[in-house]
Amino acid sequence: MDAVHVFEKPGRVSDHWTPKIVAQFNGHDILVVKIKGEFVWHQHPDTDDFFFVLKGHVVIELRDGQVELGPGDLYVVPKGVEHRPVAKEGAELLLIEPEGTPNTGDPETAVAKHWI
Amino acid sequence: MDAVHVFEKPGRVSDHWTPKIVAQFNGHDILVVKIKGEFVWHQHPDTDDFFFVLKGHVVIELRDGQVELGPGDLYVVPKGVEHRPVAKEGAELLLIEPEGTPNTGDPETAVAKHWI
Repeated sequence: MDAVHVFEKPGRVSDHWTPKIVAQFNGHDILVVKIKGEFVWHQHPDTDDFFFVLKGHVVIELRDGQVELGPGDLYVVPKGVEHRPVAKEGAELLLIEPEGTPNTGDPETAVAKHWI
Repeated sequence: MDAVHVFEKPGRVSDHWTPKIVAQFNGHDILVVKIKGEFVWHQHPDTDDFFFVLKGHVVIELRDGQVELGPGDLYVVPKGVEHRPVAKEGAELLLIEPEGTPNTGDPETAVAKHWI
């Protein structure tokens, strides 16, 4: 593989909430995503959820509180914990998920993931 | 957990080549490390090796070439592939490794990993 210039990748993605694969690691996809507004409440029963903020500000809402993240901040939502990412002004993230993980926690509503 | 301010963490590490744990994810440690100079040639038979450059420049030497990384660059060395990180002027990295992975590929020569 070549080096992945992580901060440049989200600018090549047009849609929000559509993670794109940039690399793979130990059975996981490494993805970039642009988000804006509120996502759905969801949880992943079999995997922790890795967030690293490249640009903008994100609030990870939890049922018992919230975590505020800015550029360079990393946060891991433990598996099975309900959460909802919110980025009122928009944000760009690096995500790591086991290959095939539905972004909504539900294969019925999840988007397909492609390389960029 | 609280948000982890990734770029601030390496400044709290005094020694080079001593990765410090900042978070955990799906059985992996997420670590920061300061490096300077040349590491040993090594490989990990059971895990890919994840590198993300926070600061500085790193050359990942491979037996059949090399990859040059700057700030914001990500690279994954596939498991079993011999490599040697080199950072002549010094660099700061984010690493992800299965918990207990020896940094040199050999438990006999590996450093212990602690949280920061």
